[in-house]
Amino acid sequence: MSTSTWDAPSLTTRFDEVRAHTERLAAPLSPEDQTVQSMPDVSPTKWHRAHVTWFFETFVLDGNEPGFRPFQDRYWFLFNSYYESVGPRYSRPDRGLVTRPGAHDVGLYRGNVDERVRELVATLDEGALEKLTATIELGFHHEQQHQELLLMDIKHVLSRNPLEPVYAGRPHEPVEPDPMGWVEVEGGLVEVGHEGAGFSFDNELPRHRQWLEPYRLADRLVTNAEWLEFMADGGYERPELWLSDGIARVRAEGWRSPLYWVEHDGVWLEHTLHGTWPVNPGLPVGHVSFYEAEAFATWAGKRLPTEGEWEHAVVADGQADAAHSGGNLADLEHYHPGPAGPACDGHRLRQVYGDCWEWTASAYHPYPGFHPPAGAIGEYNGKFMSNQMVLRGGCALTSPAHARLTYRNFFPHGSRWALTGVRLADGGAPRPTPGEVA
Amino acid sequence: MSTSTWDAPSLTTRFDEVRAHTERLAAPLSPEDQTVQSMPDVSPTKWHRAHVTWFFETFVLDGNEPGFRPFQDRYWFLFNSYYESVGPRYSRPDRGLVTRPGAHDVGLYRGNVDERVRELVATLDEGALEKLTATIELGFHHEQQHQELLLMDIKHVLSRNPLEPVYAGRPHEPVEPDPMGWVEVEGGLVEVGHEGAGFSFDNELPRHRQWLEPYRLADRLVTNAEWLEFMADGGYERPELWLSDGIARVRAEGWRSPLYWVEHDGVWLEHTLHGTWPVNPGLPVGHVSFYEAEAFATWAGKRLPTEGEWEHAVVADGQADAAHSGGNLADLEHYHPGPAGPACDGHRLRQVYGDCWEWTASAYHPYPGFHPPAGAIGEYNGKFMSNQMVLRGGCALTSPAHARLTYRNFFPHGSRWALTGVRLADGGAPRPTPGEVA
Amino acid sequence: MSTSTWDAPSLTTRFDEVRAHTERLAAPLSPEDQTVQSMPDVSPTKWHRAHVTWFFETFVLDGNEPGFRPFQDRYWFLFNSYYESVGPRYSRPDRGLVTRPGAHDVGLYRGNVDERVRELVATLDEGALEKLTATIELGFHHEQQHQELLLMDIKHVLSRNPLEPVYAGRPHEPVEPDPMGWVEVEGGLVEVGHEGAGFSFDNELPRHRQWLEPYRLADRLVTNAEWLEFMADGGYERPELWLSDGIARVRAEGWRSPLYWVEHDGVWLEHTLHGTWPVNPGLPVGHVSFYEAEAFATWAGKRLPTEGEWEHAVVADGQADAAHSGGNLADLEHYHPGPAGPACDGHRLRQVYGDCWEWTASAYHPYPGFHPPAGAIGEYNGKFMSNQMVLRGGCALTSPAHARLTYRNFFPHGSRWALTGVRLADGGAPRPTPGEVA
Amino acid sequence: MSTSTWDAPSLTTRFDEVRAHTERLAAPLSPEDQTVQSMPDVSPTKWHRAHVTWFFETFVLDGNEPGFRPFQDRYWFLFNSYYESVGPRYSRPDRGLVTRPGAHDVGLYRGNVDERVRELVATLDEGALEKLTATIELGFHHEQQHQELLLMDIKHVLSRNPLEPVYAGRPHEPVEPDPMGWVEVEGGLVEVGHEGAGFSFDNELPRHRQWLEPYRLADRLVTNAEWLEFMADGGYERPELWLSDGIARVRAEGWRSPLYWVEHDGVWLEHTLHGTWPVNPGLPVGHVSFYEAEAFATWAGKRLPTEGEWEHAVVADGQADAAHSGGNLADLEHYHPGPAGPACDGHRLRQVYGDCWEWTASAYHPYPGFHPPAGAIGEYNGKFMSNQMVLRGGCALTSPAHARLTYRNFFPHGSRWALTGVRLADGGAPRPTPGEVA
Repeated sequence: MSTSTWDAPSLTTRFDEVRAHTERLAAPLSPEDQTVQSMPDVSPTKWHRAHVTWFFETFVLDGNEPGFRPFQDRYWFLFNSYYESVGPRYSRPDRGLVTRPGAHDVGLYRGNVDERVRELVATLDEGALEKLTATIELGFHHEQQHQELLLMDIKHVLSRNPLEPVYAGRPHEPVEPDPMGWVEVEGGLVEVGHEGAGFSFDNELPRHRQWLEPYRLADRLVTNAEWLEFMADGGYERPELWLSDGIARVRAEGWRSPLYWVEHDGVWLEHTLHGTWPVNPGLPVGHVSFYEAEAFATWAGKRLPTEGEWEHAVVADGQADAAHSGGNLADLEHYHPGPAGPACDGHRLRQVYGDCWEWTASAYHPYPGFHPPAGAIGEYNGKFMSNQMVLRGGCALTSPAHARLTYRNFFPHGSRWALTGVRLADGGAPRPTPGEVA
Repeated sequence: MSTSTWDAPSLTTRFDEVRAHTERLAAPLSPEDQTVQSMPDVSPTKWHRAHVTWFFETFVLDGNEPGFRPFQDRYWFLFNSYYESVGPRYSRPDRGLVTRPGAHDVGLYRGNVDERVRELVATLDEGALEKLTATIELGFHHEQQHQELLLMDIKHVLSRNPLEPVYAGRPHEPVEPDPMGWVEVEGGLVEVGHEGAGFSFDNELPRHRQWLEPYRLADRLVTNAEWLEFMADGGYERPELWLSDGIARVRAEGWRSPLYWVEHDGVWLEHTLHGTWPVNPGLPVGHVSFYEAEAFATWAGKRLPTEGEWEHAVVADGQADAAHSGGNLADLEHYHPGPAGPACDGHRLRQVYGDCWEWTASAYHPYPGFHPPAGAIGEYNGKFMSNQMVLRGGCALTSPAHARLTYRNFFPHGSRWALTGVRLADGGAPRPTPGEVA
Repeated sequence: MSTSTWDAPSLTTRFDEVRAHTERLAAPLSPEDQTVQSMPDVSPTKWHRAHVTWFFETFVLDGNEPGFRPFQDRYWFLFNSYYESVGPRYSRPDRGLVTRPGAHDVGLYRGNVDERVRELVATLDEGALEKLTATIELGFHHEQQHQELLLMDIKHVLSRNPLEPVYAGRPHEPVEPDPMGWVEVEGGLVEVGHEGAGFSFDNELPRHRQWLEPYRLADRLVTNAEWLEFMADGGYERPELWLSDGIARVRAEGWRSPLYWVEHDGVWLEHTLHGTWPVNPGLPVGHVSFYEAEAFATWAGKRLPTEGEWEHAVVADGQADAAHSGGNLADLEHYHPGPAGPACDGHRLRQVYGDCWEWTASAYHPYPGFHPPAGAIGEYNGKFMSNQMVLRGGCALTSPAHARLTYRNFFPHGSRWALTGVRLADGGAPRPTPGEVA
Repeated sequence: MSTSTWDAPSLTTRFDEVRAHTERLAAPLSPEDQTVQSMPDVSPTKWHRAHVTWFFETFVLDGNEPGFRPFQDRYWFLFNSYYESVGPRYSRPDRGLVTRPGAHDVGLYRGNVDERVRELVATLDEGALEKLTATIELGFHHEQQHQELLLMDIKHVLSRNPLEPVYAGRPHEPVEPDPMGWVEVEGGLVEVGHEGAGFSFDNELPRHRQWLEPYRLADRLVTNAEWLEFMADGGYERPELWLSDGIARVRAEGWRSPLYWVEHDGVWLEHTLHGTWPVNPGLPVGHVSFYEAEAFATWAGKRLPTEGEWEHAVVADGQADAAHSGGNLADLEHYHPGPAGPACDGHRLRQVYGDCWEWTASAYHPYPGFHPPAGAIGEYNGKFMSNQMVLRGGCALTSPAHARLTYRNFFPHGSRWALTGVRLADGGAPRPTPGEVA
């Protein structure tokens, strides 16, 4: 899914960086922390560490390493996530039952595979390396996806603990929200999807044409302060604001705020990876489901953007390449979205990458002409294209240089444990003609 | 949602026709048959008969009839389907517990409301009538929707009975499938959605532009014979053909054929409203879910059409108005899709209306610029726009003159009790440019 | 299970009486009423009517009637309740899905089997009749059990209906409770279980010895007035009064009163077969589970009697045979427990038969030496001897002459839809010796 | 519940022994092993270690230690098992979500409470100590109960791991079963329950009289070899052998062997704490539910003993005190029941303590005159007296000197993760009199 050019040393350097970053994220966590699965969507930290290793072992070493043998036969079964063509796999909701291999044993597994991948890259001839590069690069991005999941998952695990443990870092100072502005976008027959030689996942292809009526996007994410207004206005109790499935979920699960918010003596606090703190009004709201995002937009008299609108607007704003530079994402002190701050460098759209994944109004469906690659790698994305919505941008837990313009993230409508937020849209409709009933 | 012109007598005539048709459909059913709810999606026959009456009582009589009083206070609660703004309502999965009012009592309720609606229409002045006409016409289409549901629902109820009861009618003679052909469609910037003065539901609006690459549609529905091939080729056991949610559902519910098929001594039989008969090879397959339709298309190396592609192709084929004439739909002897037969009258697309609702690849989302009407009627369609897929066309259970070009039917991905089938599509993708990786 | 002597005419007369009584009980119910199953424990009226008929067809006609053929092959499958040895059977929780045979068809089935049983009895020679009599008599008692269940079940069905339908009869006048007295019983080595030639179920055998320390029993059932006191004293909120399973059930199901009580504007009303009326203080409380009965006894500083204590006390009170006379049980106007009234005829224990089934402290286990009979009839009682508690006496819904001294009724700890009440016990413990820690 | 006499030094010595034994059992387990809860019945090892500590902190230190303060406020909430009167408590099925305190932190908690209990015992005056001794002794027995549970629970945790980890120890050599003999017991009016000054739990009181007809007990437990015969004879497929609830459970959970047995290439293996090994024919079968035990007895033409029969037979056999000596129970190499071996020392009943807990035919109900003690300690046993069956004896996981003659263990009918086995009984019924129908 990429035609980037890598030579062996740069590939190894990048491999070492990506692998080391995973271990850096796991370092603050005890063996006990790394073992637990607090709900079926969550995976244990040590499972993440092992699974991304299994990915390199299965898709890079197997079939390419001379005399290949798996590090441990049963890891083959234990650390397969969802690849049916690779063989049977361990039941997902039971990942938290596996006490062995322990956190330390997983480290040994990682070290072994690291060494063998380095060795393989160093010894392959140029043609063989070129053939394998796309898979190794996919392995980098795959591991980065799990780095983000590792943080989302451990946030959930620790939030369930009455001792309110802290993962790392420090909270933002309390800030007031900046005013929200609107960016007008012209639309027309636009192109959407990945192009060029750089890396993309298969689901970002093929690039194709879409028709967009003129529309506008909010220049920042919805804030906690605005969400508190929504709540105060009965947002969670008024069925007319909600999709039917949404209000059913609100009632079934007793939602009355974003996921990690708790009311204590009339004050709303938020569980974060830095501990539990009063909700900070100027920061973007996070951990809301699609249903909540959609209800909020209805309440605000607006709507969510489609993914085409989002992508085209970011291009039009000149931020197509902004994410690659990484920015504050490399700062390990921040595991929380930041304030919008002033727009700069001539851009008008703020918080596009690196604060919260932004729910769109688009179902996660294949682009016209999409075909998954042959073999097990074809299971990477395509088979999940139902009952999910697309999110765009990136979030404060996304690894440096991982977020990209055409990246299609996706979660079910009711998911809240990912770091997901809201950007409003408006317009985009055909101009009504006289006599038409709206 | 319509600007049709009706005078009082034509409105009353149509009202009487629609109301009588419901009773005609219920006539073969005993009081016991009319009482049962065989699963949460199904409603009892007498509930359908009462609910469509409640619709006229609530939205037409209340607020317009002088000295309005409900026929029975508690019916207000019992026969509200899902209108939150009208007040609390009886729990949907418990509709089968309500033995009283009985089937006969529901007939009395219907007669009372019929009489009052006729009286109201006869006595309103022209301006008042004009204002109310759109709601009365919506009531016609609402009742027709429930006529179709009544048949789908009683089919499910009777299919659960070991005595294999027959509703009515007679089966088609065994036929062999016609060959499947393909209709090429040019695409471009097309318009989709209802236009003009005739009736539409709110979800068919506003008419808007979409970009379509050139594509082609099968000229008939997938047949039972083709489905048997899919089954024989391991269709229900091969995860690589399925969406992840789809294969999970197949396994959880033990699907190995369409809903009403049962294997008996190696022969596949089908429960129909005419009784249980060997599967007829030349008829369209029915009662398959979106998941099955999508897996079948993957197996066939094809795909499902989007709803825009479907609508535009039917327009291009000159069948935009065909449904209104009714055709064989008026024949009460047939409650089952028929064979494709030869294309005629210069049309190339066969079985467009009146055999099986056709699954599309489009999520049921609002059209750009969609706004539901104010008030309870606004709950009619909009709040269901999540986790469902659009179906187009109509089916053998659709009431005469109810199917229309721009009609958007919708069901969840796993639904099978509706009379749903498959039409294949192909093409529609951007032409790959040199160097692009598909 | 009986050595009673019957001649053919008396057997036929009794058969006709029992069969007619079932139809009398079903007469006030519409076909719709007779079709519905409001929860898995409940069976539809027409199922009861058919199942007791199936019992005679299966266990009396089959194997004895010359040229036997079932009335309808599939009824064999549909109306088997739980006899594994008779063959596969229709799923119990789905009994409410079976619309056909309808109520009228079940009547035809009943008539046919009635005629054939009469014919068989009339034509058998004396030896053959003697051999068959025990099974026919079991059929009487079986049908009477279902007569009681029919009433309990339809009470539940009608109670779920917002229209609050009435089955039949009229409520008691409001009465105040009589004072509760205590009857002292000596105990010692007593005998428990059925003896003699009359009918009993297999679970009442063999008669055997038990040791009882001296104890006492309340001379009447706990009243609604006493239950209101329990509720007012926080009875349903105080875990220290409850078994652990009991309080868990209270919380899971939101119990705060007996099953059919509803609070309306601060007044407690009760759904009865006569309609919905204010709770009558002097009547015995009914429709409470074992958990509630046990918690009430704890709250009152008392306990429930064992079944041995109950049976021995009734014998000691001279009421061993009282039930057979029937008394007010024959009065079809009363489907509700009555007030205790004065003790009479030299008896001291009131409301022993015919008001509420009385929860005991005894698990429903086999008597020492119990063996179920061979064949399908052996499944009648024995296989249910786990997770249930014994109830003694009878209730206002029990058929005339059906209640008996040694009768062991049984329900799970949490059941409330049967007409179950509470009689308190005290004493029965070993006299503490000095130095023992109680 | 005891009037034993302890002086301060002997109390402290015993305290140290009991506390050290827990840590010895946990020593082979990694922090990850100690964290996981593999099903709701199971508790994590570190939870057991903390909860028994909380018991001493709550019931011994609080109210007695001058200037008492809990070690950590929230441990109060986290490590309360089920004492409603002590306050709210952490949800039981979520015990496996609590990663902190970790295994090491729990050690610190244990050390702190150990020190404080020793200090308290050393400084109390004689009267105060005497008053507290019964609670401290209860704490010993409570911790021993959790020692056994810790082993049962970790066995389940490790058995779910595809790596098949070993806890400790080594398996028995393969042995063939000894022949089973029968011990005749006379019965009559016997006494049952604890007596004398030694320790007992409250549920073993009061000692009381029961009537027993003459009966006999098997002189050893049912073996694996016999269980294989039962399986080979269709034991798990024949409903006529089972209670109705039992066969329903078999079908719902797919039982076809004892819990830890797995079939591999036609050979039955067993997961044990020593690893996975072929089923050893001469050892007692373990990890069978009451339902299975009862079905086996029916298949064998026998029955299970009542708890009174069990206790009286052991007394009659002269083994009333045998358990206190401990025997092979102190051997930490054996976590598995052993072969029956020859009867010795004049006893005839083998494997009475220390192999498998023995299911009885007795419901776990209060003895006549049972009253739980006042306060939170009263919640120890009494509130669980429903829906459970009594087990007698002890098992290979029971701590040294913990098993006793009158000990009443209890589990629900379907529990299999405890080390539970089967001893058959026969007789015990009244002698039939002529004319009685059995």
